[in-house]
Amino acid sequence: MTPYFGILFDMEERELLGKIKRLRQESKKLATSSDDVRKRALILVAEALESNKDYLFAENGKDLENARKNGISDSLYHRLVFSEEKLSSVVKGLHDLALLPDPIGRIREKRELDPDFVLEKAAFPLGVIGMIFEARPDALVQIAGLALRSGNGVILKGGKEAQYSNRALIEVIKKATEKSEISDGWILGIESHADVDALLKAEGDVDLLIPRGSNAFVKHVMNNTSIPVMGHADGICSVYVDKCADISLAVKVVTDSKVQYPAACNAAETILIHEDVYKEFLPLLKASLDSYGVVIHGDDKTREVIEAIPATDADYHTEYLALECAIKVVSSIDEALDHIASHGSHHTDAIITKDKDAESRFFREVDSADVFSNCSTRFADGFRFGLGAEVGISTSKLHARGPVGLDGLTTTKWLLRGNGETVREYSGKDGKSFHHKELI
Amino acid sequence: MTPYFGILFDMEERELLGKIKRLRQESKKLATSSDDVRKRALILVAEALESNKDYLFAENGKDLENARKNGISDSLYHRLVFSEEKLSSVVKGLHDLALLPDPIGRIREKRELDPDFVLEKAAFPLGVIGMIFEARPDALVQIAGLALRSGNGVILKGGKEAQYSNRALIEVIKKATEKSEISDGWILGIESHADVDALLKAEGDVDLLIPRGSNAFVKHVMNNTSIPVMGHADGICSVYVDKCADISLAVKVVTDSKVQYPAACNAAETILIHEDVYKEFLPLLKASLDSYGVVIHGDDKTREVIEAIPATDADYHTEYLALECAIKVVSSIDEALDHIASHGSHHTDAIITKDKDAESRFFREVDSADVFSNCSTRFADGFRFGLGAEVGISTSKLHARGPVGLDGLTTTKWLLRGNGETVREYSGKDGKSFHHKELI
Repeated sequence: MTPYFGILFDMEERELLGKIKRLRQESKKLATSSDDVRKRALILVAEALESNKDYLFAENGKDLENARKNGISDSLYHRLVFSEEKLSSVVKGLHDLALLPDPIGRIREKRELDPDFVLEKAAFPLGVIGMIFEARPDALVQIAGLALRSGNGVILKGGKEAQYSNRALIEVIKKATEKSEISDGWILGIESHADVDALLKAEGDVDLLIPRGSNAFVKHVMNNTSIPVMGHADGICSVYVDKCADISLAVKVVTDSKVQYPAACNAAETILIHEDVYKEFLPLLKASLDSYGVVIHGDDKTREVIEAIPATDADYHTEYLALECAIKVVSSIDEALDHIASHGSHHTDAIITKDKDAESRFFREVDSADVFSNCSTRFADGFRFGLGAEVGISTSKLHARGPVGLDGLTTTKWLLRGNGETVREYSGKDGKSFHHKELI
Repeated sequence: MTPYFGILFDMEERELLGKIKRLRQESKKLATSSDDVRKRALILVAEALESNKDYLFAENGKDLENARKNGISDSLYHRLVFSEEKLSSVVKGLHDLALLPDPIGRIREKRELDPDFVLEKAAFPLGVIGMIFEARPDALVQIAGLALRSGNGVILKGGKEAQYSNRALIEVIKKATEKSEISDGWILGIESHADVDALLKAEGDVDLLIPRGSNAFVKHVMNNTSIPVMGHADGICSVYVDKCADISLAVKVVTDSKVQYPAACNAAETILIHEDVYKEFLPLLKASLDSYGVVIHGDDKTREVIEAIPATDADYHTEYLALECAIKVVSSIDEALDHIASHGSHHTDAIITKDKDAESRFFREVDSADVFSNCSTRFADGFRFGLGAEVGISTSKLHARGPVGLDGLTTTKWLLRGNGETVREYSGKDGKSFHHKELI
């Protein structure tokens, strides 16, 4: 029977690859549409979500019922709920996206090479984005909205726990844009693991994959496709409390970084403390973290001052994603920088200090997407950064680094308008020379 | 004997990977150096090249002698020569690079999230770049200069035909920067295929690979490393002569695009001609191309008007890199756009037209790194674009697209300066809200 199933599987894979090819073709209408058309489409989607809310809530109810049956955790259940509150939040988000300046056609550089011979670097849609994300119906709407605003076709694979919600949302979004000039061919939902495997093979038809999820899953995607992948595996974020820290500010910021939403990738996992201040700081931090029930792993010096589980090196490599953290006392900012370089994941790291030189050194030397001073690591987020929202946070050094909003979903083209210029004229000793005058 | 050699090979690989790790460490000094230090280092390099020119010319002479013995082609020989003229050109290039604004620390976005709570997106060096390039001593200097100016460590693998020149240049460059504050640990030359294989495995220590060379070689690199790769495989560039073209301008620009330097990736390979003008245009084009001895492949309509070898579909997929081209008559701009989408390589394409609507459609719909109107495809070049020089031309849609100069060798970090802000304060119905005021 195996070969027979093999053939069936291949047929399904070929069918999906065919659908993706058509999506790419049909997305061209979206890619070349005007700002107004894309704005109107976003409003149509927002309106359709509101007018179909009973249907959406009913379908979400099926997912919630299954989730309860399957004994899903409280935090996953909370993310799975598509409530009146979440609906109004995503609807507001779509309206906000429509108000943001058009990312397409934005001129990033403009230079006159010679009189009346002007070069521009302008932004254009990437093409087709493949998004794989957790069971969060509101995330589906945000991602679809960002793709639409930035002119990109999108293939959506949401968490299977949200399958009824995902199907209903994609159906409503598709129908809403059917009424717009871009038609409904720019969005496709996929569901199974086999679909994801097929998506990874759609090189040439998909321009970017953004997988969210476990470290292991993200690595699986990165290792099994030749399509560019943006995202991050680990989120091991540190806060370094410098010797010149304001101690009460440090307690407040470290606590927020750890407890405000511990399941997020930008929550702090490691706290590094300068040895000049650990005796004063640690009892205050412990009192604050205790009130949230945070489990503390600490090195020997930490355990001189507060009660903690002895920390191993593995703790400093662990993304707890829970009310748990690892603390280490360091002898200098150099040791803190070395620790972050060898144990961090280049995501988000913060320094607490009043010393501008320490801050500037931390900013220069920490090789992470987001580097903060005197504020919570939890600010690493597309909405908080003013990017509208985010499709994910990238720790890649190429293209978008940090929260990926509209700009991260665009590419650029160099546009050069000439009047018959040839390179021959600009060559050799007696050739014309460029004057390269910046116009922007 | 095989296992024994296997062990030897592994030891060499391990040794090189160790050297690369040290290079990464030592490059940090360069990465965090000031603008002045990097400028001074460039000047030291320029001076050292001039004061060691006899040695450099003598070593280059050994390569030239071997090349003659091995019956190298004239065009490769020409590229291999490191002459007084090329020396003064690269020395001028290094001085020009020192004059360009510092790419490091450049603020690309700046936004106030709330009063006195400011977010910046600033540029920083990528880290370590691995460059694999052809046997061109002047290219080695250019690449090393761009890496130095942008604060990046660099591993250089030049074409083996230039091995004496490469060794001598790297030695002179290293010694020159030894005298600067950055010391000499930022640059490493490698030579063998085994070295390249080891380089491809240096994930985590090398941030970006830029391979130049044959299509097959670039694909080999892309398929055999998990380090990000920037570059391009094919350079199948087209010029589309629209029905509203200025015919004599079209002859001049098409000729320059084809003949000015046919071995370059930005030389035109395919000429598409609107059927309203082909009868007038083709005899004039043929006369012009004939004077350079260009071999023409043409479709049936082309061959109604001029003598040409019958073109097959394969011709339209061919990067001739020689005085040879493929011509096709199309019935509309749509057919031209479709042809470029299905046969082009997303590198550089140009339209010749007086019609602003056709130009704007071509700019919007051609999905290539460089899209030009009414000028030669040969302008796709970092120097001509005003980027100082280039390490290569990228057809990737992510990060740098088109000629890659200093900016393409940087990444960004989001820097956020706070005063104890927590996400808790900005959460919930009664929370503070962001004002997101653009400061740039």
